[in-house]
Amino acid sequence: MPERMIAFHGEGFDHLARDAVYHAIATRRDVRSHFTPAPVDDDVLARLLQAAHHAPSVGYMQPWNFIVVRDMQRRQQVRNLFLAAREQELPAIEEERRALYRKLKLEGICESALNLCVTCDRQRSRNSPLGRWHNPEMDLYSTVCAVQNFWLAARAEGVGVGWVSIIDAGALKQLLSIPEHVTPVAYLCVGRVSQFAPKPDLETHGWGRRLPLSDLIMSETFSGAGETPLKSAIARLGDETGTQPKA
Amino acid sequence: MPERMIAFHGEGFDHLARDAVYHAIATRRDVRSHFTPAPVDDDVLARLLQAAHHAPSVGYMQPWNFIVVRDMQRRQQVRNLFLAAREQELPAIEEERRALYRKLKLEGICESALNLCVTCDRQRSRNSPLGRWHNPEMDLYSTVCAVQNFWLAARAEGVGVGWVSIIDAGALKQLLSIPEHVTPVAYLCVGRVSQFAPKPDLETHGWGRRLPLSDLIMSETFSGAGETPLKSAIARLGDETGTQPKA
Repeated sequence: MPERMIAFHGEGFDHLARDAVYHAIATRRDVRSHFTPAPVDDDVLARLLQAAHHAPSVGYMQPWNFIVVRDMQRRQQVRNLFLAAREQELPAIEEERRALYRKLKLEGICESALNLCVTCDRQRSRNSPLGRWHNPEMDLYSTVCAVQNFWLAARAEGVGVGWVSIIDAGALKQLLSIPEHVTPVAYLCVGRVSQFAPKPDLETHGWGRRLPLSDLIMSETFSGAGETPLKSAIARLGDETGTQPKA
Repeated sequence: MPERMIAFHGEGFDHLARDAVYHAIATRRDVRSHFTPAPVDDDVLARLLQAAHHAPSVGYMQPWNFIVVRDMQRRQQVRNLFLAAREQELPAIEEERRALYRKLKLEGICESALNLCVTCDRQRSRNSPLGRWHNPEMDLYSTVCAVQNFWLAARAEGVGVGWVSIIDAGALKQLLSIPEHVTPVAYLCVGRVSQFAPKPDLETHGWGRRLPLSDLIMSETFSGAGETPLKSAIARLGDETGTQPKA
């Protein structure tokens, strides 16, 4: 990590450094429409991958691999998988929303500079699976943490990332020669962008709205009301979600 | 988000802002041993939860809820679940590593300022499950992205987070009255810390070492060699992993 270049005050983050982290989180987007043909330098990609590699992992398992896909013919094949999967998914969508669904741009596989398949090797710690006896899916979750690290670092580098989730995982495994015991967790489109949209695409196009955060907070149990001071603090923050601050 | 306080240059991050993001990623720790009794202010917790709420989610589903657990008697009960689960997991660990496993501190449930259970409502978008027809686990992955946002924001606030994965999810659901269709994804210990350890605990205690990143990079397919310039760029970065830069 480029820590050697940083002058932080001991372990702390000053306000600007802290706000930089919040800024990356708040302005990160699932990019589909705004990729440009500009390349992503290997030096930048190396930093992004190192950020991913510094994710937490259950039992320090580090179960991830990163398949860099650049070949345009292969990407076309992946895109064909997406197109087929979209047709398969369509009947599961409410009838009155299908026209909108069809209009949504949901991938940038061929327009982005490169693709990245992030996988999880389910057997990497098979001799001593610390933390997975009860919850074997923890290695998949660790891999998702790596994806989110990559995504936020990319935002800070001005690189856009889009996660293609409409795809048949079995077909993708075959196309990328992924072995049986390895699970493809995320197929990412990665590239320079013309902009980071001010809001999520699905909000802009009317698919959904950001939920009011306070409604998602429970106290002590799932049905527990309470945490009034915390909810007041949330209201004081305001947001960019369309809901108005209440305090 | 506290964007209004930030003077960024348009959409870009200057070097210091970019490096702040990398610094949060590189120095984030799974905290178990270093919690202090200091409280976490509601204003801070509100920002952390808002960061979590800004995670990407499949189909803009936002499937998460956040149960704030403060009651010490309930936390003792959760800790009892951990202790029982650890005993159950022990036989799955290689015999020669069991003594080390027993010595590892793997949770800070009662020493941290508060606990947070992050859950995933599997039915939140049941009418229009965009992006989940082929991969229904995508909502769980979205919830993990929220956890990682929370974790990185916490690092920037000087707040430690530890993820307790050694626990029986069914028993935890019962204890927190979590309904059938909701999955507890992460049980987090959250609090002020005396330090962020320079390395992951499991590395310090000899459980594992960070893998060389270059070994995890594949080109085009899972068995594909290549990406030599990218691997050279990774070598130039150096790291804090014990492996030496090769260039």
